Amino acid sequence: MNREIRTEIPQDAAPVLVEVWRGQMIESRHRLSIAVVDAHGGVVRGWGDIEQPIYGRSAIKPLLAIPLVESGAADRFGLSVAEISLATASHSGEPRHVDTVTAWLQRVGLSADDLECGAHWPYHEASLHAMVKAGQEPNRAHNNCSGKHAGFLTTAVHLGEATKGYIQYEHPVQQRLLGILEQMSGCELGGVPRGIDGCGIPVIAIPIANTAFALAQMADPHHLPEKRAAACRRILQAMMAEPFMVAGTDRYCTRLMTAIPDKAAIKTGAEGVYCGAVPSLGLGICIKAEDGAGRAAEVAMGHVLRHLGVITDGEAAAHPELLTPEIRNWAGTVTGRLKPSADLAF
Amino acid sequence: MNREIRTEIPQDAAPVLVEVWRGQMIESRHRLSIAVVDAHGGVVRGWGDIEQPIYGRSAIKPLLAIPLVESGAADRFGLSVAEISLATASHSGEPRHVDTVTAWLQRVGLSADDLECGAHWPYHEASLHAMVKAGQEPNRAHNNCSGKHAGFLTTAVHLGEATKGYIQYEHPVQQRLLGILEQMSGCELGGVPRGIDGCGIPVIAIPIANTAFALAQMADPHHLPEKRAAACRRILQAMMAEPFMVAGTDRYCTRLMTAIPDKAAIKTGAEGVYCGAVPSLGLGICIKAEDGAGRAAEVAMGHVLRHLGVITDGEAAAHPELLTPEIRNWAGTVTGRLKPSADLAF
Repeated sequence: MNREIRTEIPQDAAPVLVEVWRGQMIESRHRLSIAVVDAHGGVVRGWGDIEQPIYGRSAIKPLLAIPLVESGAADRFGLSVAEISLATASHSGEPRHVDTVTAWLQRVGLSADDLECGAHWPYHEASLHAMVKAGQEPNRAHNNCSGKHAGFLTTAVHLGEATKGYIQYEHPVQQRLLGILEQMSGCELGGVPRGIDGCGIPVIAIPIANTAFALAQMADPHHLPEKRAAACRRILQAMMAEPFMVAGTDRYCTRLMTAIPDKAAIKTGAEGVYCGAVPSLGLGICIKAEDGAGRAAEVAMGHVLRHLGVITDGEAAAHPELLTPEIRNWAGTVTGRLKPSADLAF
Repeated sequence: MNREIRTEIPQDAAPVLVEVWRGQMIESRHRLSIAVVDAHGGVVRGWGDIEQPIYGRSAIKPLLAIPLVESGAADRFGLSVAEISLATASHSGEPRHVDTVTAWLQRVGLSADDLECGAHWPYHEASLHAMVKAGQEPNRAHNNCSGKHAGFLTTAVHLGEATKGYIQYEHPVQQRLLGILEQMSGCELGGVPRGIDGCGIPVIAIPIANTAFALAQMADPHHLPEKRAAACRRILQAMMAEPFMVAGTDRYCTRLMTAIPDKAAIKTGAEGVYCGAVPSLGLGICIKAEDGAGRAAEVAMGHVLRHLGVITDGEAAAHPELLTPEIRNWAGTVTGRLKPSADLAF
């Protein structure tokens, strides 16, 4: 799986895998590339160009949580299952998310002011409205990435590193993550394209297939050193045990993991990236919508899990919102639906 | 320009015309089809498949405002330039938008309760927060389409039609609009695919090139009957004179029309549709992002207007945010930029 990474993506279009229907016509189309890979690096299923490098964005947060557990930091500070789940989250800023991050940082001797992720209003509308009504302003604990950042800070404190500047590429926290991404993805990443994420940390270009391979190694970690393998198992179990912490009310990650308990750990990211790990099959999944559309990546994740048998016929019938979500207008009328194309349909 | 409309769009990919850069790499790509057409039906410029039928969504609101002016309803109820502009709007629900719609409906003997568009919170964050703080709930006047709906109701009252049910396909208001769309686009629309819009009115499938032709006829209406020609001129002039009413603070329509005063009337729509009319050149523009992304359609509109010379070198230099908008993260750092591809770059 060790590959040279290309910086130019060919202009060959990825296949249309998700269709947006309105009335009698397809209104919009989403092209995606998808890799399903096992822990030996074998490609089990693929759609589109899975060799193209992408930024994994928040979809690789399960990988970025490895040092928190592997280093012993999580045990030293007595992190709960919910807190480990939150370390992988793009949460909606609901009170339970924010209160958990705040209390966790306090146990480590830090506060929201030590987070370097910037502040933003909660994604969750009722939580946002409650804050506005109460005359509150968001702080950095409300940032959807605050759990990941709390994990970075906790690891730095545990290892005696400076906490200031932990989002910089050169900081030991980020260099340690680079090493983990290299080992898990099977790619040398020293000279590859990079950029800065919405929360300020580096983003690193890794091919789709290698990103899926990294998730597969989490799902089936028996080849890994014992401490890393244990960390991978514990992170995925935490996500599946506390799916609310990974996202929040009405969010796709939370809904799907709640609908099929303990069968898959999935994580969304910006710009149409979606990753998943299926421990029972030892498989990793990486999805990238060419256009960056999250709605497309969600529908694709549902159908990939259908293809793999992870979502059963019964579960699919019980949860059409995960596979062919409705589009409603402001008056509540159903005006359309997202559907898989013939290439993706199960 | 009278064409048979196909319901199946070929799977040939539209060209990548807008790139989303982050750091050293393109992160996402948008494919678009674009037609620039004159009032004789000649295609001046084209990208992608301009024969594909699309729903014009809110981007064709300038066409949907024609009956309001042409019927004499606007004059009977003394509509101001700002109110006519608002009849073409997808506004942000700022106080001036909502107050104007409310006062206008009152003059017609109606209220927000007569609007059949559903209610939603303002798009404009400060206006939303002010309402939440004051314990207010949005009513139908806050709906971004409330100006268009007020125009429909005003026309119905003027012509002695029932106001109830004016969003239904069979209602005289919608049948009149169907006739206008047929005449302006040069298409027979009786049996084409249709659906329901976010605000409840019918959406009708019209090819991209014919949609651009309809806008071209507005921009250069000398072929049209005198009353319709006058209505077209007055609507476009109102949009250009009151660009705030078409959208709102920091919105692309408002920003661009403010930056290049009286040179083009442009209107965004859902699912990546963008229409424009350039009176000085007698041209109409229709843009459709295959994936429905508004951010792509905006950048494309800017570059099409550059290609046409409507945005000058000086204006382009003064307004980079209209052509290559920055992407910033929560901490305010510039992390990326939208750019035209080589195929669209001027």
